[in-house]
Amino acid sequence: MSDFPKFVEFREEGPREGFQIEKKIHPIEERIELIDMLSETGLKRIQVGSFVNPQKVPQMADTAELFKRIKRVPGVRYTSLWLNDKGFRKALAAHQVDIDPRLLFYPSDTFSRKNNDASSIEMREKQREWVKLYKQEGHAVDTAYVMTAFGCNFEGPIPQQRVLDDFRFILDLCTEENIPLPILVVADTMGWGNPEAIKRMIGALRDMKPDARIGMHLHDTRGLGIANLYAALSMGVDMFESSVAGLGGCPFAGHGHARAAGNVCTEDAVFLCHELGIRTDIDLDKLIAAAVCAEKIIGSPLMGRVMHSGGLDKYRKAS
Amino acid sequence: MSDFPKFVEFREEGPREGFQIEKKIHPIEERIELIDMLSETGLKRIQVGSFVNPQKVPQMADTAELFKRIKRVPGVRYTSLWLNDKGFRKALAAHQVDIDPRLLFYPSDTFSRKNNDASSIEMREKQREWVKLYKQEGHAVDTAYVMTAFGCNFEGPIPQQRVLDDFRFILDLCTEENIPLPILVVADTMGWGNPEAIKRMIGALRDMKPDARIGMHLHDTRGLGIANLYAALSMGVDMFESSVAGLGGCPFAGHGHARAAGNVCTEDAVFLCHELGIRTDIDLDKLIAAAVCAEKIIGSPLMGRVMHSGGLDKYRKAS
Repeated sequence: MSDFPKFVEFREEGPREGFQIEKKIHPIEERIELIDMLSETGLKRIQVGSFVNPQKVPQMADTAELFKRIKRVPGVRYTSLWLNDKGFRKALAAHQVDIDPRLLFYPSDTFSRKNNDASSIEMREKQREWVKLYKQEGHAVDTAYVMTAFGCNFEGPIPQQRVLDDFRFILDLCTEENIPLPILVVADTMGWGNPEAIKRMIGALRDMKPDARIGMHLHDTRGLGIANLYAALSMGVDMFESSVAGLGGCPFAGHGHARAAGNVCTEDAVFLCHELGIRTDIDLDKLIAAAVCAEKIIGSPLMGRVMHSGGLDKYRKAS
Repeated sequence: MSDFPKFVEFREEGPREGFQIEKKIHPIEERIELIDMLSETGLKRIQVGSFVNPQKVPQMADTAELFKRIKRVPGVRYTSLWLNDKGFRKALAAHQVDIDPRLLFYPSDTFSRKNNDASSIEMREKQREWVKLYKQEGHAVDTAYVMTAFGCNFEGPIPQQRVLDDFRFILDLCTEENIPLPILVVADTMGWGNPEAIKRMIGALRDMKPDARIGMHLHDTRGLGIANLYAALSMGVDMFESSVAGLGGCPFAGHGHARAAGNVCTEDAVFLCHELGIRTDIDLDKLIAAAVCAEKIIGSPLMGRVMHSGGLDKYRKAS
């Protein structure tokens, strides 16, 4: 039944996820240090920051400056987030941003309105425009996300069919626009997923489009992140977005979001992959060092586990 | 392939695991408060403390007093740990200790010597004496543990066959002594397990003795605790030892054991079971309240996640 991939790609979101929710605006030097350490781990894609409204998210206001000052390692893509045309233009205008266009779909109408001032249906139509815009600028769509794919704090459980409808729309859109299919990302934005629900969802998505590449964006809100990731691995999912040290998820990091929770922890997930014999091309010890750096910057305990216990290789070598 | 149980029993070890590693000796009243809250959750077995050398573990020196002062809820068993005949005698002599005799097996000779001043083989022979002692006192053996079943920090990986040999010894011992088979507990004492290794181990154990009841004692040292528990559930394991709030596992709780890690977190595991449609007869909200109480007592952030985010029922009801 298991269909583990041979290789898994991790896309690091800690530098954005971790600092956008901090009340404190950390000195740019601290974030540069963290990003530079992450660059040395073998991670091939690091989300540096986001081009969003600096009034709303002042923590990310220096993203353009960050891109100028990080030490680039060849082969690593340094990406950013944007949520509208204006943000995309800013990313294009900034220094050496690796552009990875995303499409965003919202099966929860309430969350869509809160996050984008637009209904689910309006967001769908906007994505059609975004595809044209990206094409015009010569960029292939990299990923297409269906958000809150398992449930939404505003609307409750999300029916699987509603999520599959969005993915169907994506497939049709790509056919119409004659563009390659992006990675289909199932996003558990609010931590509603469980391992069996994830297996059912991935299975249904594979039935719909067997040759699609599927990724997951998992939040560890309720402690099931790593079990959910394991379930996804067993269904052949080979791309995950994650945060070093579980950044963004620490309810105690002084940001006052007692109920916030970030992405699944990168180094714990990498450790799992290695233990299962799955390649990641990431150096776990270097990643742990980056996690320890993140904890030092935040100044309070982060939720990663392997960063505190260490991996197993040293014991294996000793024995 | 999956063989989820309909009902899972959780045995709470937080009051012992959590406080025995604290440098500070917490006032007995605080532990009474926590145990009394746990008693109201639906948990049917709570490990109150341990009868061990008070010179070595002064935090547990007042265990007998604890047993006198907790508020007993009918149907709940209040148990304790002991590691030798003397400890067992103390438990028998103390006020209303629910006696649940255990047998302990050590595939790692080094760990056996460190923990018990006896080799693996000597420990095996001791267990034979313990069975006789328990019989003599009229108590059935409740559980038989094979420790460090996946690996040991002192000896490295533990071969599966070595673990199965210990379980084979247990089966033979029960036949010889004509006693019912206890629950066979696979203990990942040092956090070496991964979901696939766990499936292989449980599968092999089931092949050896299809009608045995199997339990697990899982430590969350490297962040795989809940994934390991999920894997065990999928193999039909229906008894877990766990710690409320992940007590004992917080590397930051002021105990200075940066590398310590406790049992898998009870309320996160209960949440997983409920999401999978598995009954536990535990009230998640009451358990979360107990976890919050534990955090208050320890005085620094604990590792549980659901205790900080809450479960999903409130959102489901609202929608």
